[in-house]
Amino acid sequence: MRSFTILFVFATIVALALASTSDNVEAISQVVEIHRLRPQTGSAGHRVPQVDCLSWRLAVETNNLRDWKLVPKQCENYVGHYMLGKQYRHDCEAVADAAIEYAKGLKLGGDGKDVCVFDVDETILSNIPFFARCDVAFGALPYNATKFDEWIADGKLPAIPSIRCVYNTVLSLGIKPVLLTGATENFRQSRTTNLKKVGYRNWFKLILRGDKDTGSAVEYKSSKRTELVKAGYRIVGNIGDQWSDLIGENVGAHTFKVPDPMYYVG
Amino acid sequence: MRSFTILFVFATIVALALASTSDNVEAISQVVEIHRLRPQTGSAGHRVPQVDCLSWRLAVETNNLRDWKLVPKQCENYVGHYMLGKQYRHDCEAVADAAIEYAKGLKLGGDGKDVCVFDVDETILSNIPFFARCDVAFGALPYNATKFDEWIADGKLPAIPSIRCVYNTVLSLGIKPVLLTGATENFRQSRTTNLKKVGYRNWFKLILRGDKDTGSAVEYKSSKRTELVKAGYRIVGNIGDQWSDLIGENVGAHTFKVPDPMYYVG
Repeated sequence: MRSFTILFVFATIVALALASTSDNVEAISQVVEIHRLRPQTGSAGHRVPQVDCLSWRLAVETNNLRDWKLVPKQCENYVGHYMLGKQYRHDCEAVADAAIEYAKGLKLGGDGKDVCVFDVDETILSNIPFFARCDVAFGALPYNATKFDEWIADGKLPAIPSIRCVYNTVLSLGIKPVLLTGATENFRQSRTTNLKKVGYRNWFKLILRGDKDTGSAVEYKSSKRTELVKAGYRIVGNIGDQWSDLIGENVGAHTFKVPDPMYYVG
Repeated sequence: MRSFTILFVFATIVALALASTSDNVEAISQVVEIHRLRPQTGSAGHRVPQVDCLSWRLAVETNNLRDWKLVPKQCENYVGHYMLGKQYRHDCEAVADAAIEYAKGLKLGGDGKDVCVFDVDETILSNIPFFARCDVAFGALPYNATKFDEWIADGKLPAIPSIRCVYNTVLSLGIKPVLLTGATENFRQSRTTNLKKVGYRNWFKLILRGDKDTGSAVEYKSSKRTELVKAGYRIVGNIGDQWSDLIGENVGAHTFKVPDPMYYVG
């Protein structure tokens, strides 16, 4: 009986020790979970203002938020994970699917006058390798024009594969691609080399910003599109990552907004 | 020594039993995790085409997808959870925050000519109670005009609280609210009663679609905004859940897109 008592006591200790370990694991996982929550209310139950990064990104993508300078500090990680993760890729694919379906359904003039306008940066080429740098932080740190120009001059931008599919579909249908970029004329050589290296061929025009092309992005791009229309071309589609690519004069018969939560061009 | 052996064996059994319970819990949680994954590839490694509902919603909100008739069947649950959950509320709050900040920063004429155009359904009033019905399924089942008209005539639409804040801010700043809805004149009484019941007061105009207002939503709304502009009013803001509220003629100095993944009005 005495041994049974000892046995029972010891077994209970072991059981409690193990249960306690298991509790610890649960407690640790709870701590991790609690750590990820942010307080929703401050003293006296008042709501603590905080940025919902999903809502912020939607506001950017719908042109509700304008003239913003930096990704909110609280959303630096969110934007980084978005851009490097599958959601950005899927979002681009959804743009491409819509654009390709639209293009294939078009009744074209057959006179070589149908054109599709493509923006370049974050539309057909990607600056992710630049924006992923620690000193850029996906747009959460101030823009450094010198560093960006060096990166562009290097000509190492990868293509955005799904939008390259749109480009190739457009070409195969006999619609002429017009590349319209805010980059300046001095980058013509590096842009051309870069574009060809990652699979873009046979564009109808590559329009860069010349010395005389003053004004905002909306004004510059509007005036270039208006020139096309005055020359008798029909802009059947227009695809860009900035709303300044897609608003203004002669925006085209259908616009397509490619996601870009990293920077704003007005 | 014999008691110690018995003690050790018993303790081991207890320990194994506990460890096994803990393994089961882990195994179950793994099964749950696996169940949530959908296959990304079919036979021979080909990608299985599937709708990413987040990407679909973004394509809708950015006006990339047009003239769609129904929420994709695969996204019925997604849209339901979105509309009833916190993300839709947060997304509306982000629109409201942007609109209020913009309105407060405006330099107004002080001559009573500054107006802000508000759409009604899914902008200042919500049809969620209707769309949440089993026979509507958040827009995944075909639209039934008779049922919808009955619901509208009943006048039981709740306000969207964050957008009501925009409305009240606009009023308090001396900007005149113009309510511009695609609903027809025969709903004027029920709309007015409904709007007042949920806290909307002192609008400058409530414009409904009259017998002579033919044409698409874009044409109808453009023509009404143009009338305002011709009468000397300045449209300082324009807020709506459909892109047909926000494109066309005289869209206003700043548009605000309120989320709506449930239906499309062209």
